[in-house]
Order: sequence, then structure tokens, then C-alpha cells
Amino acid sequence: MSSTNSQVIRCKAAVAWEAGKPLVIEEVQVAPPQKMEVRVKILFTSLCHTDVYFWEAKGQTPLFPRIFGHEAGGIVESVGEGVTELAPGDHVLPVFTGECKECRHCKSAESNMCDLLRINTDRGVMIGDGKSRFSKDGKPIYHFVGTSTFSEYTVVHVGCLAKINPAAPMDKVCVLSCGISTGLGAALNVAKPTKGSTVAIFGLGAVGLAAAEGARIAGASRIIGVDLNANRFNEAKKFGVTQFVNPKDHDKPIQEVLIGMTDGGVDRSIECTGNVSAMISAFECVHDGWGVAVLVGVPNKDDAFKTHPMNLLNERTLKGTFFGNYKPRTDIPVVVERYMNKEMGLELDKFITHRVPFSEINKAFDYMLRGESIRCIITMDN
Amino acid sequence: MSSTNSQVIRCKAAVAWEAGKPLVIEEVQVAPPQKMEVRVKILFTSLCHTDVYFWEAKGQTPLFPRIFGHEAGGIVESVGEGVTELAPGDHVLPVFTGECKECRHCKSAESNMCDLLRINTDRGVMIGDGKSRFSKDGKPIYHFVGTSTFSEYTVVHVGCLAKINPAAPMDKVCVLSCGISTGLGAALNVAKPTKGSTVAIFGLGAVGLAAAEGARIAGASRIIGVDLNANRFNEAKKFGVTQFVNPKDHDKPIQEVLIGMTDGGVDRSIECTGNVSAMISAFECVHDGWGVAVLVGVPNKDDAFKTHPMNLLNERTLKGTFFGNYKPRTDIPVVVERYMNKEMGLELDKFITHRVPFSEINKAFDYMLRGESIRCIITMDN
Ligand SMILES: NC(=O)c1ccc[n+]([C@@H]2O[C@H](COP(=O)([O-])OP(=O)(O)OC[C@H]3O[C@@H](n4cnc5c(N)ncnc54)[C@H](O)[C@@H]3O)[C@@H](O)[C@H]2O)c1
Ligand SMILES: NC(=O)c1ccc[n+]([C@@H]2O[C@H](COP(=O)([O-])OP(=O)(O)OC[C@H]3O[C@@H](n4cnc5c(N)ncnc54)[C@H](O)[C@@H]3O)[C@@H](O)[C@H]2O)c1
Ligand SMILES: [Zn+2]
Ligand SMILES: [Zn+2]
Ligand SMILES: [Zn+2]
Ligand SMILES: [Zn+2]
Repeated sequence: MSSTNSQVIRCKAAVAWEAGKPLVIEEVQVAPPQKMEVRVKILFTSLCHTDVYFWEAKGQTPLFPRIFGHEAGGIVESVGEGVTELAPGDHVLPVFTGECKECRHCKSAESNMCDLLRINTDRGVMIGDGKSRFSKDGKPIYHFVGTSTFSEYTVVHVGCLAKINPAAPMDKVCVLSCGISTGLGAALNVAKPTKGSTVAIFGLGAVGLAAAEGARIAGASRIIGVDLNANRFNEAKKFGVTQFVNPKDHDKPIQEVLIGMTDGGVDRSIECTGNVSAMISAFECVHDGWGVAVLVGVPNKDDAFKTHPMNLLNERTLKGTFFGNYKPRTDIPVVVERYMNKEMGLELDKFITHRVPFSEINKAFDYMLRGESIRCIITMDN
Repeated sequence: MSSTNSQVIRCKAAVAWEAGKPLVIEEVQVAPPQKMEVRVKILFTSLCHTDVYFWEAKGQTPLFPRIFGHEAGGIVESVGEGVTELAPGDHVLPVFTGECKECRHCKSAESNMCDLLRINTDRGVMIGDGKSRFSKDGKPIYHFVGTSTFSEYTVVHVGCLAKINPAAPMDKVCVLSCGISTGLGAALNVAKPTKGSTVAIFGLGAVGLAAAEGARIAGASRIIGVDLNANRFNEAKKFGVTQFVNPKDHDKPIQEVLIGMTDGGVDRSIECTGNVSAMISAFECVHDGWGVAVLVGVPNKDDAFKTHPMNLLNERTLKGTFFGNYKPRTDIPVVVERYMNKEMGLELDKFITHRVPFSEINKAFDYMLRGESIRCIITMDN
């Protein structure tokens, strides 16, 4: 047991005091983990669009001050009552969605949408007692998706921690705790392209590139990247994308362009944009008879997915996925293991385009906002 | 070889001279089968909604005079050039959609939407030479979906004939050539409910009842029938439907009612109405995480399927099926065989509510239009 065990820890955290304003590194207090909670010392964290989206707080009720961050890797510092699966010293990846192992979803082989620990972006407190574990000068600071990894120490529900091989390079595998697994799983677990098949990827951000990586690993021979940003293609080539289509270069709907290029449609498509018209195109461009379209992007509140039902009748399949259908505690350690064994040929280095020390965390925001980075790893200074 | 082999046959056929007007039994001429065609002596045929729909010709370009009929069983009378798989005397079920065995769809394990012989309701002629094989007084009479079984003899492309066990009771298995297989396959091949699961069936016509039968065979323990017509429920009980919900009895959207009844949604739903709002309800009532909705009903031309993409993101699957995903030549003979062996517990008698002689074929239309029949078998007089 660590000596900090049942004590409050003082440490540095990057606090978002206001929507859209640079984070401020503050000394905060981190309360000890309560029942079924774990306090984790974060070693590496990376920035994902979801952090930026809720930090900008344009589409939702703002919740500030808040500690963002959800892609990370760390080491268990201490555990609360009832935690038996983890012990101080264990290497873990915090995940924004959990796995209680007891609800119908956790017991279903198909779902990873745990009833208890499913992502909740509105909740800024722990589910156990409805309180925050972070404070500064006695005033609480809100959590973010149960992880809040932009802090040297954080408190996470045990169900949101994947225990990984301690030999795994934490400064790389930390990216598996959100976007990369989401895209990878969307391809490997949901779209499941067969060898030699044609796959379209809509959106070549981190998630889309990971989906391309998954399609490549699955053996797809033709991977068509679709993005409005032509700059994405050079990067995308490294991830197995063989062809690039920019909807801006065409007058007709992009689904028609893809159907023309592929003798009737692609075998699989994976939408990673969050744009509803891209979702519709991604569906309508799959081949009738066997095509499968997978939606990954998070839509806006009042978006409507609209298509002629005949497109479905003609034996197309449409599905969505959340975190690539991976169960965080059960599956992510296996993905890490396979990565280490080079079993599936997953390459994480390609995703990591930038690194900054914790003190310069705002630079990670700049890189992302300027569209320069895929993933920027933030190294904690401790 | 039959003696009628290369000659024109004169026989009786029920001709639709005009949209919506009673059929007239006429003596027609049936030309010999050409390349890859087969002339079939029809023994039994039944009436399906699709016949009625195109006979009413409210939504499409009318094509008259025409010989309708596509659910049937018969015996090969003669074969045209190049036909090697069938010989006179073989028992066959004509199917409105074919299987050429050579196109990408036929070669795909997943699709039954043959490029060459896929249903075409607008074409009233043979695909080989663009001509009709039926005539009266030298004037051509149009075919219907390549089958035109309301005739003592008809000419069908070899790719649209399923060769079945000659011991099969033709007066029953004839219903497997359209609606019953469509519903059955939608459940067994596409929705694939697991044992003990809950399935909602929207629309309790012949197709929906066959879907219920399929769900029952698959081991679903709770089958909820949804129909606007309360009279359907008594019939439906025979097909394994355990509960009945009439949207007219509820103020809130029926998907919400079903979600309330099932602790979050059904495991599978199968839509067999053709009504687009039922399609949307059928999708939105499936459980997140694992629910699968299957669309079977044929929508109107300008219908739009509309839902919030979040319903998909939450790991629901939406697919459509055509003829229950059965490949007509490959799979239907197997279904017939399993029916005969009582292997899957499929009961066809329940679907056959009426029988009329060919001379009274218009009665079959009346039964259907009054909603009294599930299937009415028409016995050819010859
Ligand atoms: N389902 C999940 O579990 C899950 C998890 C993480 C992220 N996401 C979502 O996945 C999506 C992608 O995430 P990301 O981090 O890669 O984002 P990103 O912003 O880095 O990439 C999105 C890309 O899509 C492109 N794009 C936008 N509109 C387009 C259109 N109409 N057609 C073609 N391309 C278009 C953009 O140019 C950009 O390159 C986001 O919506 C994110 O919220 C979902
Ligand atoms: N996909 C295919 O391959 C295929 C093949 C054959 C038939 N079909 C289609 O399947 C559908 C069903 O065929 P059928 O012969 O059983 O038709 P049917 O008319 O006998 O039955 C349809 C039933 O749906 C009910 N219904 C209509 N609107 C409803 C609503 N909004 N909510 C609940 N119930 C509603 C009706 O009351 C009726 O009982 C039709 O659309 C038909 O065209 C499809
Ligand atoms: Zn759970
Ligand atoms: Zn993320
Ligand atoms: Zn074919
Ligand atoms: Zn039919």
C-alpha cells in the first residue's frame, strides 16, 4: 500500500475555469478513493476532440471549473473499499465508458454500453456519492467523463479502468483508451471487412485513420478515404488509405461518385466525421446485397438521419458503434497485448504526431484546433 | 420429352385486361420456351398482395393486358435451349426473383439480389428476347415478375425456378414461393433471434405471421404482434404471437410503448407492413447495445426513413431483406425438404385459410381485399 493511501493528495492539474479559455495549471487537492474507486497517478495523457468539444461548450450546458482529459495511462496509487481487481502499482488505462460486469449490457456478448458506467458528459461528479474528488481552496472542481486525466492524480471508478500489461509502453498505448480503439474496433469488430474487400472511410481524423488501420489489418485491399480537407490524404496513406476522394471536387452526391468508382458500391463504409450528411452518404454508398455501413461520429442534437427505405430493403446494413464495441476492462488489455506481440500489425507511432510536457498542455489544444496533430501526447511532469 | 415440346400450347389463363377489373379466364396461346427458359404446367397458385397491388395499378405505370400470379407450384412441361438443370416432369416453384448463379450477388454468400434476374415489376416480357410468350388472337399479353402463374401453362427463366422434391405436397409448399419464405427468412436468416429472446412483429399479414412463425422456430419466448387491425390477433396466436399491441390503443408513439413493456426494448423487430412510420417504430423499439431491426415491407416511392443518428450510435442495427435473404434455387428446395422432414417445425396449413378452383380466382381477390384470408390456394382445373 502506498503511503498516500487514505490521504488527500496535493498535485498539479490543468483546470478549465471557463469555456474556451486556456487551461491553468493549478495545485489542487485530490481526495482519497471511496467505495469502488481507484486513485491513479497519470503518466501520459493525450488530447481528443471530445475534450475540446466540451471545453468549448458550444453545444451543451457548461460545467466549470472542470478537469478534462480521458485518453491516458497511469499507475494505481491507492484503492477504495471493495476494489479487489486492482492494487497499487497496477498499470491502467482510464476509459470514458465503463464495464460493471453485472448489468445486461456487460453480460451481453454484443454490447459495451454498460448501464451503470456508460459515458455521461453532463455528470461532473463521482457516481458513488455525487461528489467531486477534486477541489481547490475548498471549492469543488468538476470531473469529466469519469476520468479527468489532465491531473497528476485522478480518481476513477474501478469499472472505468483497464488493467494492462506493465511492460506495455504507456507513452504509446495511452492512445488506446479512446479514439484509436474507437476507429480500430469500428473496423475490426463491427464493419468486419473481408480480405480483398473495398472500404470507404469518411473523415480522416484520428478515429477515421484508426478505422483505416483496422480495415488494413482486416485485409481490405482498397481503402477509399473521404474528407473535405485535402491535407489529410498524405497522412492517410500511412494508414493504408489507397485512394482519396474530396466531396468538394465533385458536383454530384459523393455516394454516387463512390458507387461509380466501385462498380455498384463499397463493401463496407465507416463514418468518422460526426456530420449527418456524411453519415447518409456513408450508408448510401455501400453495395446492395451485402454492404455494411458503420456510424461512429457523434451527431448534433437535432440531426436527422434520412434515407429512402428501399436503400435498406436492398439488403444494406446500417449500424452504429460506441468505443468500437470494445468492452473496456475485458477487451482493451487484449488489444494492448496484441499490439505488444505485433500480432495484428497495429502501429501506434503513426498516430502520435506531437508531444508536449504537461506545463505546455495548451499547445496540444492549438495543434488540434489548427488540424495539425493526430494525437499529441502530454507527459506529466511528476 | 413431352409431345407439346416445341409447339404452342393453348390453355386457360386468368387475364387482367384492365386495372382493378375482375380477371377473365381466357384461352391463350403459350409459345414454347426459348433459350434458358422453361415451360411449366401450373398445378396450384396462390394470391399475394403484390399481385393485387399491381393489378390495382394505383402507384405505377399500368401494364395491361397482363397475367398476374407469382406464388405457385408446377411441373416442367418442356425446356428451351441451354437448360440442363431441369427436365420435363420436374417439380418446381416459380419465384419472382431469380438466381443466375454467375453474378456477384449469386456468388456472394450474403446476397440473393441477382443482377440478371432480380425482381422487375415494370418488365412485362422475357429478358431473353424482350418478347412475351403469351398471346391471344395474335396480340401479346404481358408477363408479371417473370412468373405469371395465373395460367395453366407459363414460361419462366430457368433461373427463377426452384426444383423441389417431387414428393412435396405441392398444394401447400406453393406458398413458399413468395410471402411465407419472405417472412420466415426475415426471422431465420436476418433477424436471427436467440433462444428466449423478445421479438416484435409489425404487421400481421401473411408475411408478418411467417416472421412470427420463424421467430417461434428460432426459439424466441416472447413475440409481440403489432397491428392496427385488432382482428389479426386471434389468427396470430396460432403463429406463436404471445402479446398484441394496437397502436390505436395508445397515445404515445408505439416504440415507447414497446420499450416500456420490455425493459428498454425488444431484442429483434421485424417490420412487415410497408408503412414507413411502422418502419421507424420498428427500428426505434429495439434495445440499445444489441437490438436488430429488419425491414421487409415495401415502402412507397417517396417515403423517407428518418431517425436520430444517436439511435444508431447506441449500437442498434438496421437492415432490410428481400425474399427473406433466400437464394431461390439454392435455398428454397432445402426449406421444402426441412418442411417435409418436420425438421424445423414449420406449419404451412395455418397459412392456408381458403381454397378456390381456378374458375373462381376472383374470389381469392375478394377474400384478400376484405382482409379475410391469409393465403387462398387456387387449384388449376387441368
Ligand atoms: N462512437 C464513439 O464511441 C466515438 C468515440 C470517439 C470519437 N467519436 C467521434 O468520431 C468522430 C471523429 O473523431 P475525430 O477525433 O477523428 O475527429 P476529427 O475532427 O479529427 O476528424 C473528422 C474529419 O472529418 C472530416 N469531415 C467533416 N465533415 C465531413 C464531411 N461531410 N465529409 C467528409 N469528411 C468530413 C473533417 O475534415 C476531419 O478531417 C467525431 O464525431 C467524434 O465525436 C466517436
Ligand atoms: N421484402 C420482400 O421481399 C417482400 C416480399 C413480399 C411482401 N413484402 C411486403 O411485406 C409487406 C407485408 O405483406 P403482407 O402480404 O403480409 O401484407 P398484409 O397487407 O396482409 O399485412 C400488412 C399488415 O400490416 C398492418 N399495418 C399496416 N400499417 C401498419 C402500421 N402502421 N402499424 C402496424 N400495423 C400496420 C395491416 O393492418 C396488415 O395487417 C408488404 O409491404 C409487402 O409488399 C416484401
Ligand atoms: Zn455494466
Ligand atoms: Zn476521446
Ligand atoms: Zn445472379
Ligand atoms: Zn408475393
